[in-house]
Amino acid sequence: MTGSQSSAPTRGRQRNEADVVVIGAGLAGLTAARELVAAGRSVTVLEARARVGGRLLNHRLGDGQVTEIGGQFVGPTQDHILALAKEVGVATYRAAVPGENVYVRNGRARRFSGHLLPDPLALPEMGIALARIGQAAAKVDPAAPWRAPNARELDGMTYETWLRKAGITGAAVDLVNVFLNSAYGGEARDASALFSLWYVSTFGDETHPGTMERGTGTTGGAQDSRFVGGSQLVAQRLAEELDGRVQLNAPVRRVSQDSTGVTVVSDAGDWRAGRVIVAVPPLVASRIVWDPLLPAQQDQLFQRLPFGTLMKCVAVYDRPFWRAEGLSGMGLLRGGSPIREMFDNTPPDGGPGVLMGFLGGREWRKWAHRSAAERRGAVLRCFAQVVGERAFDTVDYVEQDWTAEQWTQGGPTAVAAPGVLTDFGQWMGRPHHRVHWAGAEFSPYWNGYMDGAVRSGQHTATELLHQI
Amino acid sequence: MTGSQSSAPTRGRQRNEADVVVIGAGLAGLTAARELVAAGRSVTVLEARARVGGRLLNHRLGDGQVTEIGGQFVGPTQDHILALAKEVGVATYRAAVPGENVYVRNGRARRFSGHLLPDPLALPEMGIALARIGQAAAKVDPAAPWRAPNARELDGMTYETWLRKAGITGAAVDLVNVFLNSAYGGEARDASALFSLWYVSTFGDETHPGTMERGTGTTGGAQDSRFVGGSQLVAQRLAEELDGRVQLNAPVRRVSQDSTGVTVVSDAGDWRAGRVIVAVPPLVASRIVWDPLLPAQQDQLFQRLPFGTLMKCVAVYDRPFWRAEGLSGMGLLRGGSPIREMFDNTPPDGGPGVLMGFLGGREWRKWAHRSAAERRGAVLRCFAQVVGERAFDTVDYVEQDWTAEQWTQGGPTAVAAPGVLTDFGQWMGRPHHRVHWAGAEFSPYWNGYMDGAVRSGQHTATELLHQI
Repeated sequence: MTGSQSSAPTRGRQRNEADVVVIGAGLAGLTAARELVAAGRSVTVLEARARVGGRLLNHRLGDGQVTEIGGQFVGPTQDHILALAKEVGVATYRAAVPGENVYVRNGRARRFSGHLLPDPLALPEMGIALARIGQAAAKVDPAAPWRAPNARELDGMTYETWLRKAGITGAAVDLVNVFLNSAYGGEARDASALFSLWYVSTFGDETHPGTMERGTGTTGGAQDSRFVGGSQLVAQRLAEELDGRVQLNAPVRRVSQDSTGVTVVSDAGDWRAGRVIVAVPPLVASRIVWDPLLPAQQDQLFQRLPFGTLMKCVAVYDRPFWRAEGLSGMGLLRGGSPIREMFDNTPPDGGPGVLMGFLGGREWRKWAHRSAAERRGAVLRCFAQVVGERAFDTVDYVEQDWTAEQWTQGGPTAVAAPGVLTDFGQWMGRPHHRVHWAGAEFSPYWNGYMDGAVRSGQHTATELLHQI
Repeated sequence: MTGSQSSAPTRGRQRNEADVVVIGAGLAGLTAARELVAAGRSVTVLEARARVGGRLLNHRLGDGQVTEIGGQFVGPTQDHILALAKEVGVATYRAAVPGENVYVRNGRARRFSGHLLPDPLALPEMGIALARIGQAAAKVDPAAPWRAPNARELDGMTYETWLRKAGITGAAVDLVNVFLNSAYGGEARDASALFSLWYVSTFGDETHPGTMERGTGTTGGAQDSRFVGGSQLVAQRLAEELDGRVQLNAPVRRVSQDSTGVTVVSDAGDWRAGRVIVAVPPLVASRIVWDPLLPAQQDQLFQRLPFGTLMKCVAVYDRPFWRAEGLSGMGLLRGGSPIREMFDNTPPDGGPGVLMGFLGGREWRKWAHRSAAERRGAVLRCFAQVVGERAFDTVDYVEQDWTAEQWTQGGPTAVAAPGVLTDFGQWMGRPHHRVHWAGAEFSPYWNGYMDGAVRSGQHTATELLHQI
């Protein structure tokens, strides 16, 4: 381990102390801090933003109502986030709204119920796709995808190539991409086949192997439920419990280690700690100044985990008018729409009406640099295809572009291109001397989801407590 | 444009001024600075390291002799670096050493002359590969690969997949990877087909379309010549000419812009300038704190341009003993050797003897984390297969691992995975308000090479001078 590489930036600054400094007050960091405090350690959580929650963000609708413009859904097998929410007193409710969904293809809308798309051609193609994806994903170990029997072959091609080779075509490819747009802000070409199949394998837990159905499902799947008060409330409650241990507006600029501890330099002062947990996304972590540097292999891995591109587009109405017309507000749109998947995001007690659409993957890349007005128009036209012309009668319209958030730089999660998992994956969670890693990207189950973040925070706290 | 996002880091610090601040004293930055000074502008070049040259680095052998442990080769159509070297008084010499080359396959060595591999099976496969790669690369515009007729198709698959689809198999795939290991520190699976074919299209200039033969060739190709005194000497001469305008040990931590100029915060003090040229690799640039942030599309692009993995391994001997045995010291090794391509890197006047091997791509990923002693043994065993057992009688052994260099973080250049060029490529060189970009990664010709760096530095200086 080397000494400081530059003129000491900490000279003359106040230095605070803690057993453990946690960097990042998202779910993973807050969960880790909670475990450490319960084990009797002194902990400070340094958060760059003026708020906690990371990729969880409530948007106030007035009158105490909120809707989410970050992560929002939970479902079965996500027991870690569900248990934690219960402990901090945040209730859940079923996300699905009674009524029919709408399927739009090339501008033509058709109503449908449940999961059965009203597309006679797409249905058998989707059936084949789900079966083949399921078979392939079942061979991937969520904890070590690089050990899959054909890992090197799968990691040598894009998921787009794999889908074609697996005879998955037409509507199925399009619908898989609709899912990927929302789930990781990407396209089938952005990810290796191994990564995408591994990702499916993470949609479960130790006793329920991951399936595409669970990942894409509403009721009974990953979009089953939501939190009363908004998902960010879970993070806010955790922060309250931590009772003054969370320091906001404290972007960390440098982490220096020596044989006796770690110095963390933030805009809110310096901390000295025995151990550090970095609970920010790998990309964001890689932009901290590291002294000594991260191991080259780990830095290379972090270089190869870009974030997806995702924006949430939210339209607010006096009331959820579509419900009276027998519509659930859920829509699937194919054929080049900016919004390809949308949901009724109305608060649980029924008002005001909120529609939320994902603008992700390639659509983000087409639309993000255009004017806000042009984009708003295009988004509302999508909404109108699903719920009718009243979609234009908004009382509010909000965009949350996660790629433009300084402390996230993309969303909703990291995507690995071909070659990354097999050549670098094993470096993912390896501690760097006194620095440990946590976050949704570090979990073998529900990677990139709230449940993965909580799992990872608990896992890393335990790992660290075993070492000190 | 927003104001400073944190407690002002510049308060009470000395502030220097210049018309233009150039960040990075590699070839691109130094070339740009030279042009700006010639145009009468005041310029400061801020360099993070204690030396100039970036990815050009001489290693001293004693008695005034040097060998290169960074970029070293130049060749025909690289007129920009050749002209610049001439202007600063650095001469070139032919790199090829008389004698036979050695081809090692599965541990068995065969001598050969010129380009004709002594492998009756590999030759026709390579012939077909070169023809098909050439045909496909000819359709890609070096300045706008995303406009190629089949750009989206090519950018949806890895180069590995494309090679298979093009009927390029066996030895040819292996030899293409040997080239990629050295040329971009990667494997055919790391890059999209579009990126790799575009890369071939850049091996030329406005009047000589790029070809694989020119990129891989020794005499008459990209490995034709070397610089007397080592390639870093060109950068050193440029820095001398700049006469005090280069500030070493000045890592830039933050770049803040407002309507009247740019503030650059470095460990050596702060600078205020009208314009800034960032002449460090995209990955390194993305780790600077940007205020305002980079456009999200450009940040996403930089997130998706990881560096390759490359180490140069250099063994020094009393003299180049292999020459007396009729060997050129050039070796091509297939079948899982850590070193897959090696050269005689002896200084031009003939001593001491130097062998240099590339440990790149997947081999780096296998070997970089092992002990230095184990790696040295494995590398020398490779050298011994090419020049005999005397390869073990070293007087010195040096490794230069570019991935472990803080201000490069990989090498020799950036590699784009599928989806990147078509969805984000157009954001590559776009100025960010008062900030302009330069570097080998920004050139449409000899991208990632010295010539690309010089071209880019000249181009960006011209672009900037047109705007102020």
